[in-house]
Amino acid sequence: MSRRRPTLAEVARQAGVSVSTVSKVVNGHLDVAAETRQQVEQLLQQHRYRPRRSPGRQPVGLIDLVFQDLDNSWAMQILGGVEQAAHEQGVGVVVSAVHDRDRSRPGRRWLDNLRARSSDGVVLVLSELSPEVRSQLDALGVPVVVVDPVGDLAHDVPAVGTTNWAGGLAATQHLVALGHTRIATISGPTRVLCSRARVDGYRSALDAAGLTVPEDYVGHGDFTIPGGHAETHRLLDLPEPPTAIFAGSDMMARGAYEALFERGLRVPHDVSVVGFDDLPEAAWAAPPLTTVRQPLSEMGQMATRTLLNMVAGGDPGSRRVELATELVERASTAPPPR
Amino acid sequence: MSRRRPTLAEVARQAGVSVSTVSKVVNGHLDVAAETRQQVEQLLQQHRYRPRRSPGRQPVGLIDLVFQDLDNSWAMQILGGVEQAAHEQGVGVVVSAVHDRDRSRPGRRWLDNLRARSSDGVVLVLSELSPEVRSQLDALGVPVVVVDPVGDLAHDVPAVGTTNWAGGLAATQHLVALGHTRIATISGPTRVLCSRARVDGYRSALDAAGLTVPEDYVGHGDFTIPGGHAETHRLLDLPEPPTAIFAGSDMMARGAYEALFERGLRVPHDVSVVGFDDLPEAAWAAPPLTTVRQPLSEMGQMATRTLLNMVAGGDPGSRRVELATELVERASTAPPPR
Repeated sequence: MSRRRPTLAEVARQAGVSVSTVSKVVNGHLDVAAETRQQVEQLLQQHRYRPRRSPGRQPVGLIDLVFQDLDNSWAMQILGGVEQAAHEQGVGVVVSAVHDRDRSRPGRRWLDNLRARSSDGVVLVLSELSPEVRSQLDALGVPVVVVDPVGDLAHDVPAVGTTNWAGGLAATQHLVALGHTRIATISGPTRVLCSRARVDGYRSALDAAGLTVPEDYVGHGDFTIPGGHAETHRLLDLPEPPTAIFAGSDMMARGAYEALFERGLRVPHDVSVVGFDDLPEAAWAAPPLTTVRQPLSEMGQMATRTLLNMVAGGDPGSRRVELATELVERASTAPPPR
Repeated sequence: MSRRRPTLAEVARQAGVSVSTVSKVVNGHLDVAAETRQQVEQLLQQHRYRPRRSPGRQPVGLIDLVFQDLDNSWAMQILGGVEQAAHEQGVGVVVSAVHDRDRSRPGRRWLDNLRARSSDGVVLVLSELSPEVRSQLDALGVPVVVVDPVGDLAHDVPAVGTTNWAGGLAATQHLVALGHTRIATISGPTRVLCSRARVDGYRSALDAAGLTVPEDYVGHGDFTIPGGHAETHRLLDLPEPPTAIFAGSDMMARGAYEALFERGLRVPHDVSVVGFDDLPEAAWAAPPLTTVRQPLSEMGQMATRTLLNMVAGGDPGSRRVELATELVERASTAPPPR
């Protein structure tokens, strides 16, 4: 692989197209056939082609913040942190969601808008960065920082997460310390890295305490209330149902509350529940939910500072940062029933 | 008052300054003494000076959305609506909060940023539009739409609100229908118009039912949990405490729950509680909170469509729109104890 910067002419020759076609792809114009675009993008990626931002280009003072959805208080907290850090540097934050109808051609329209407003950089939250979008962003020379990466990222995309493994460990250790031995977990989707890390922390805490639990004590939800509800019913139907449940999100903990209520079981007297996130809702639950706090606002701030440093031509520093989680003890956990 | 467009020269003459100084004020430059700026802005306002956007100017496809704070799920729902409507037209939404440290010189820095990015328009949420900021925005020729106006607005600023009066009426009628006669309310700050409208709806419902309540049944909170908590304790200390409380926000209803719990009173068996907003948290409360739903997402959408219509040179249509509230009956209301 060539270490020097390939010329567009070389890429054009290899792709068997004109230089102007390659240039169109680099600049994100849309009048290139999909196949051709794909072929050229692959070659650009192989050559690690990185257009330098044109030397005269000044940052415009805008960054993009992209969520999967905007319908939850989780997103709000990240936005608060991003806006805070951007405001400190006089930078505006353009907020958007990945809309359903866009998923067929992921990000194409959003990329067009990004280009139109010459955004200086992108903070991407809990989203997958498709190779296509990635190479388009590369072509535009727009730096990206990811918050709470969903899947494996290319190694050179800076990402800010939270200590999911340590959070799963702390939640489970708390239940062990209360005397529980039958501790189950409901994880998020397995393709999401943070879910996996939380379950691994759970397993390590059990292991360190010398506890073994049936394999079907590990349930799989989807971060939603119905997911937590269905999995809790499944757990309660086991021959030896658990006395404690570590849910991989506050929403799933909420679903667990509902299932337990339907069975006439009380939290925490009959079954203890721990969540993950510490949404504003968690303190409203009855009993108030013991949960693992994610420092969402701080994650947003750090991602933004990293991005703005890159916009200014700096190095992002560490490519992977995890900010500390913290167990917030409320009233949903107690010793197991005798 | 002159009906034709005054020239900058006339304003300059009346203010006793140079035309270039007036021009600087119009264009929002900062190197004008505060007193001079104020004097010129007053004259421009008196003359209803409106610079036409330069004829060649094309919308840049960006609008600004400004909140007081970004730390609540209320804001998230409005943002969801604004982003949805903007996305439909390929427009980006720059989100910002009015930061504390800015309050001494309200909006100056934000105005600078707005100007720098040539934003096409502004949606302002639950904020006061100071005359200074207003005249600056006028000078920039940037249209504004207000969501949930705090105080009296100049008559020509389009605003989208919700039927606060009808919401207060419906909440109180619901309690009357359950058989309550001792119904108190905790309103938001009186300077906020929507609070006043909710209390007036409450009074009308009582009046229509032929009920009279002591004047100290109308409490004043500040939309926060501690505010609702303190006012509920005050209500419970009255010689004839109420059997039902209509709180002017879900947060204050939450504070009422806490005060009732501290007194050993049960919701709804001893005291019924109704909130206002229908935040995501409301369904998590125990018992789940009966509340008046504000169509926050729809309000954000309507404000944005109105704004984008104005950006395109259209008329905003009606200057005042109120979208319907809706009573959501959950489990916090019941007939009064015998």
